[in-house]
Order: sequence, then C-alpha cells, then structure tokens
Amino acid sequence: MTPPPSPPPPPTPSLAPADLVITGCTALVHDEHEGIAFVEDAAIVVRDGAIASIGPAEETAPVATAERIDARGQVAMPGLINCHTHAPMVALRGIAEDMPAEEWFNDVIWPVESNLTANDVELGARLACAEMIRGGVTCFADHYFSMDAVAAVVEETGLRAHLGEAFFSSQGPEGRARSLEFALRHRGAAGGRITTALAPHAPYTVEDADLVTTAELAREHGLPVHLHASESRDQTDNSLARHGFTPIEVLERTGLLGLDAGVLIAHGTGIVERDLPVLERATGPVAVATAPRGYLKFAWPTTPVRALRRIGVPVGLATDGAASNNSLDVWEAMALTALVQKSTEGDPRWLTSRQALHHATLQSARAVGLGERIGSLAPGRRADIVLVDLTGPHTQPVHDLAATLVHSARSADVRTTIVDGRVLMRDRELLTVDVPTTVRELTDRLPALTDRGHGGRIQDYDKPPE
Amino acid sequence: MTPPPSPPPPPTPSLAPADLVITGCTALVHDEHEGIAFVEDAAIVVRDGAIASIGPAEETAPVATAERIDARGQVAMPGLINCHTHAPMVALRGIAEDMPAEEWFNDVIWPVESNLTANDVELGARLACAEMIRGGVTCFADHYFSMDAVAAVVEETGLRAHLGEAFFSSQGPEGRARSLEFALRHRGAAGGRITTALAPHAPYTVEDADLVTTAELAREHGLPVHLHASESRDQTDNSLARHGFTPIEVLERTGLLGLDAGVLIAHGTGIVERDLPVLERATGPVAVATAPRGYLKFAWPTTPVRALRRIGVPVGLATDGAASNNSLDVWEAMALTALVQKSTEGDPRWLTSRQALHHATLQSARAVGLGERIGSLAPGRRADIVLVDLTGPHTQPVHDLAATLVHSARSADVRTTIVDGRVLMRDRELLTVDVPTTVRELTDRLPALTDRGHGGRIQDYDKPPE
Repeated sequence: MTPPPSPPPPPTPSLAPADLVITGCTALVHDEHEGIAFVEDAAIVVRDGAIASIGPAEETAPVATAERIDARGQVAMPGLINCHTHAPMVALRGIAEDMPAEEWFNDVIWPVESNLTANDVELGARLACAEMIRGGVTCFADHYFSMDAVAAVVEETGLRAHLGEAFFSSQGPEGRARSLEFALRHRGAAGGRITTALAPHAPYTVEDADLVTTAELAREHGLPVHLHASESRDQTDNSLARHGFTPIEVLERTGLLGLDAGVLIAHGTGIVERDLPVLERATGPVAVATAPRGYLKFAWPTTPVRALRRIGVPVGLATDGAASNNSLDVWEAMALTALVQKSTEGDPRWLTSRQALHHATLQSARAVGLGERIGSLAPGRRADIVLVDLTGPHTQPVHDLAATLVHSARSADVRTTIVDGRVLMRDRELLTVDVPTTVRELTDRLPALTDRGHGGRIQDYDKPPE
Repeated sequence: MTPPPSPPPPPTPSLAPADLVITGCTALVHDEHEGIAFVEDAAIVVRDGAIASIGPAEETAPVATAERIDARGQVAMPGLINCHTHAPMVALRGIAEDMPAEEWFNDVIWPVESNLTANDVELGARLACAEMIRGGVTCFADHYFSMDAVAAVVEETGLRAHLGEAFFSSQGPEGRARSLEFALRHRGAAGGRITTALAPHAPYTVEDADLVTTAELAREHGLPVHLHASESRDQTDNSLARHGFTPIEVLERTGLLGLDAGVLIAHGTGIVERDLPVLERATGPVAVATAPRGYLKFAWPTTPVRALRRIGVPVGLATDGAASNNSLDVWEAMALTALVQKSTEGDPRWLTSRQALHHATLQSARAVGLGERIGSLAPGRRADIVLVDLTGPHTQPVHDLAATLVHSARSADVRTTIVDGRVLMRDRELLTVDVPTTVRELTDRLPALTDRGHGGRIQDYDKPPE
C-alpha cells in the first residue's frame, strides 16, 4: 500500500500588504511550452506594479491589500498590445474611404498631415488612448510626428508605450537626429512605461545611406528600430525594379537585421519567398506587426504569418492608424488574424484560437521588445492585466474558452484595464481620460486640420521607377 | 428681383397621441434612388407599431406621447436583419473549432443535433434572441428543427422573425408535411411579427422530386422557400459530378426560381459563372444571404456579391448559426462583407460603407420577403429601429457617418432596440429576456446535449459521388 499523498504545504503568509488583489476570475496563463492554459477561480496579487503571485485561490495566502477586485464571471488575461499604430491619426478616422492606398496617401493623408500641429497630435493621442484603454490595450507601439506630445499623453493616461519619432530622408539629417534625440530623452520615461525606438519611415522614403547610419546609431545606443517595410506587394515589386533588392533585403544590406535591440517591421504583406532565408539568417531579433483589417480594405495581400512562424519570427497584432483601419481595436485584429489566415492559407486547422492568443500575448510582447516584462500573467511580470466579462449572451455557453475569447468576445467586453498595477478603466469607466472634453477640443481643430487648399503634402507614396 | 422663398407650411397638429417619440438623433433614411442619407436632429413619431412620421425636428409637430426617448449623440437606423441563422445553435457555440466543414458537420454537429430536444431549442433560441436584441438585430430568418419552440420565443421576446421548419428527404414525406404545417399554422403569428417559409435543407439532402413538390406546395399556399444552396464550391463540383447540374440549376429545374413569394438562398459561395444567367432569368424573386465570417473560418470562397448585384439579386446579411460563426453579430457581418468584398474583388472602391448599409437595410428586408414593411425608416413602415451611440472614443470624430457606422461602430454601441414600436432593450438593458436564468438552464442541459457516445447523426454532409 502506498501512503496517501501528503497535503500541499500551507500557503506562506505574505509579509507586505498588496496594492491590488483580483479574485474569482479565470486566468489565462502560459505553460512551460508557452501553450495557453486557464486557471479557474484564480487569485492575482499585485505589488509595486508587478504580479507578485498568480494561481488557484485555494493556494493563495490571504493578504492585506489596498484594493480588491471581485472578478467572478471574468477572464483575466495579459493586456493587449498594439504593435504598430499612429495613435494621433484617430483625428482622421473616416476621412479617406474606399480608395486605393496610393490615392489615400497622396491625395488625402499626406496633404492633411502637413497641417498637423503638436496640439492636434496631443488631442488625437489622448482620444486614441481612451479608445485603447476601453478596448483592453495596455501597450502600444507608436510611429508618428510630434512624439513629445504622445509621450506626454502616455505619462498622463497611464498606458505603456513603445515610441518612435518618424523621419524621412527628405527632412535631411535633422529628421534622423530628432528621432535619436527623442529616443534617448524618453527612454525609460513615465516610470519605465515608455520605451523608445529609432523610427525611419520606410525603405522607399529613407535612403539606404540613411538606413545604414540609423543602424549604426541603433547599435551605438542600444536602441531598436521600428519602421514600415514591404507594406504591400507593389512596394516589393517597385523596390526590385528600382535597385534589384526587396525591401527586406535592403534592411539586411543596411545592417538593420543585425541589431541587438531588434527591428520591428510593420505590415510585411509584400514579404516574398526570397525574403524568408534573409529573415531567418538575421543576427538580431526581428519581428513583424500585422494589421489585417487595413489590408482587406486596401485589397492588399495579408502578412505571411505561417511562413514567418515557420522560421521563428514573432508576429504581433496591430491596428495601424485609424485613418486606414477606422479603429484601434486590437481585439478585432486578433479575430481577423485568425479568420484571414485560415482563408489565405486555405486551411481551417491553421491559426487556432490558442495560436491567436499566443500572437496577442507573448509574440506581441516580443515584437515591441518587452518579451521579458509583459505578455503573460506570471510572477515578476509587470501587472498589465485586462478583465473580460463573459456573462453576456453572446459569450455563453462556453465550450472552448480560447474560442470564446477570440471569436465570440469583443473589445467592449473588457470591463477593467490595468497597467503597472494601476486601474485605468474600472467597470467600463475611464479613470484617466476625459473623452467629451477631448472630442470637443479636437472637433474645433478639424476645419484647419483637414484643409487641403494649400496643395502641399509631406511626402510621396511609393511609385514605380520611371 | 425674386421674392424671398415662402416659409415652409406650419407643421400640421397631430390628432392622436403617439406611442413613442424619438428626438435629437441623426436618422439614417433612404432617398428616392435608395441612396443612404442622414437627417440631423430628427424626430421619429411611432404610432400603432409603425412609423407615423420621420424628419427634421423643426418640421415635426409637437405631439403627446406615451413614451419619449432623447437620443442625442445617437443614430437611428433600421434594425439589422439576420437573413439566415439557426438561432438555437448558440447552445453549441465553440463546440467544434478549427476544422474543415465536412468534419465539423459529420463528426460533431450532426451527431450532437441528434440529441436535441424541443426544450434545448427553446433555451438556445431564448439566449440567441437576447444576443440579437443586444446587437441591434430586430428580425431574423431561422431554419431549424422544433421550430414551434422558436416561434414561442419570438412571441415572448418581441422580435420579428421569418421561420421555417427544416426537413431532409431522409425523413420521408413527413418532414416536408411538418414544414408545411408549421408554415401555415404560424404565418402571421405574434401579431404579424412572424412570417414563414418552407425550409428544405439543401439540394444535396433533399431529392429533386421532393424539391419539385416543395415548389408546388409553395405556389399553392403562397409561401416562400428558404434553403441552403451552393454553400461551397465543393458542393457545386459534387452536384455537377453527380447529375451534371449545379445546385442553382437544380433550383431552376425543380421550379424553385419561379415562386411568387420568392426563394431565399443561404450562402451561395459556390455560385459559378454559369449560374448567373439562371438566376437572372428567374421568374420569381430570388435573394441570397451572405454570412462571411464562417466562410473565412472554413476557408471557403465568399458569396459573389458583385456578380449578384450586377444581375439585380438582393444580398442580405447573415451570421449563420453560432456553432460555425461563434456569434450572431450582424453588425460584424456588415463590416466583414465590406472588407472581404474589397479584398476578394481586388478593388478598394467596391462595396463602400453606403453600399454595406444598403445591404444591411433594404436588401436584407427584401431577402426575407419584407421589403415593403421593414428595412427603412419611412412613414408607414413598421417601427423596427435601433439607436446607436456614437459618443464613444472609438467612433469620434465623425468625418463620414456611413464609414463610422460600418467600420468604427460595433454591435455593442447599439443602446436601444425597438420592434413594432416596442422597446426590447433600453440603454443596454434587456427588457424581455432573463439571461442569467436562461444560461443556467441551458448549461444544465449541455452534458446530455453534447454526448456523442451513441454514434448516430441526423444526416451526412455532402460527399462527392463514389
């Protein structure tokens, strides 16, 4: 006869009081192979902005706490990460609809962007942060202009962000210098919630020599690079016609695939077969951000997620700016990634709900260079947590919780959003943004912002070589 | 000198008090060419379940009313219509994920459906109605079993519905007789909110002779027919291999394209070039319901909406059942139709937001045979109205209201749902369904419902001929 198993050791009494304890939820965690798992009736203890413990309530010692959230009927999961956006562009949501990308850029967006003031950027970023907090986004990678204003809004609203000041070669060396200065000055700001990147716009708007210098600066300062590349198949074809290399090959030749701090490539829908060995032999971290909604809208192909996964490249989820995507709804990007990948690959078994959740969590965290700090609910990780209400009729009954989250739940089911242990939205109420005032101020600015009478534009969209 | 224009005539004082008056909203209306237009600061007067008047508040006479809704910041639009669903299948939401259609039907859904009781159908339908009311759906076309239970739930929850009792030839003539008996008995029930159809399952499960009889019965009784046809390209290929005709040609040969009351074809993703002249020469009304989410998930092609529009066939929006679609979110179906159509046709200019709204309103109403009664906000139409809140950060600012509705708003932005002038949801609160009780009762039934130990199934999915 074997003796009965010994009872588990009694929970260790906690010494310090917690800042926040969440109880009664089902928690989405990752197993040792990074598989998605769920812990029922979980308790999450948060201290000093980090997760102190997470596990079944019965194994969690009672702890004094400043704040307690009863999350019965809700799922706790890592906050969503918007891996590529231009947050202030919410100001232009719906301004240019139902047209091809070239017309969208050249005839509307780039002319309008020549009117942008830092104040417009600030108002747009504030509205965008409100939208993202309401949609369960806890971190966003932004690539825009007047980024000091965005950094100030991040500080004020409590979100986490990975920020880069965009530049074109047409701005001369000052553009690149501003991007570097921004990255160095804001790195680690907002109590560590802000990380930064150098942000050349794209290989078709930034010359090779400029990209080489960018890579050297990135290496010198330990900074990552965030840029658009291979956005569409046309860009790849134009790049080949122009100098015989694909945009991905340009990244390799200019040294951007060998950075210790990594490179984040936005879109990559024009990544072709010959690019795969190039990405595979990269000597620094490489990730791709996919924003599938806009690709459907522009009738572009989508990011080759399956091929990228096969060579080990993380693919994070994104919305791009709201001027093309119409929203900053990363939850929708998660569902669309699953749906569009199945359709594109012709394989209903590919991109399961659990794979979609892996993209939304760990892969997205890696894409923005925060793979060790966020992206999973585990002791020591920053407490970036969202609570998702599954009691609505559209999310019941639950036969497969991963499918319920990806395919039935919606961003509006996020009830509570927490970053660094601080509650930014509680029961759908935003605590750090005044939406009506922001909308009013932004609306007052729209006539001046959208004026195209001046005939100028900040840049030209990629055109085939003459 | 021309004289100044004479002032508009003073509003005619109304004689009878109204049942409901909605003020302060922007109203989505159709112009004389069916184009989408918006009336700002509109007032809608509802009397006896119908729209008595709609127009600018300043042209609307003050009227006494039993109920008044201040809808400032909201858009009033016709309630959404789910043109093809199996509402009770919400009970199976998420039960069979990430697999091809054949496996989904044969290995999971049809075995499980052999366990279905009328009580399961009732509970599922009640939960589905809650979900649809919350998502702004005011009418649904249902095609399932134990439809008496669905009709009872429609009566109780206040929705409008177009119901058909499904049958297979494998059930013998009794199946068809039951479908007819159901259609005749429930036609005009629930105060006229229920209309009915004969509901053969599909050409691959109902023999040609049975379809011929169905068409004769439909003609004799003035009933429409609602069935699956050409669901996938494989079904078209199998049909051609089996007897040399496409499923659409089978519909023509069996007389189903010549019914005065019309035929509603679910899916039609397998409609091919040779089917178009067949549909064009149909002597009775023909419409197609498209449910794009499930096609992406099964890696099917999508409904050829552009080709169908070219020959004048209305295409209504649908979700199919939640076991494949994971939700009954017609708002999402509207957005996905726009996105997937652009992508599939390779044309960003096709399927604009206004076209999507036309599919969601008049075309969907025509698809379910109610083109004269619902589908637009106009005097004399039934008062099936939803109020959509656009004050959220994700729907601001508004540069293009049609785009805001289709691409930025979500089903959760519907605040109020009204059918036949009766408020079924007010400020997100459901007034006719008790969701927690329904979920509890349904959850208790799940172990018996999902048992597949018996090895039976109600039918076999379309297989190529041996």
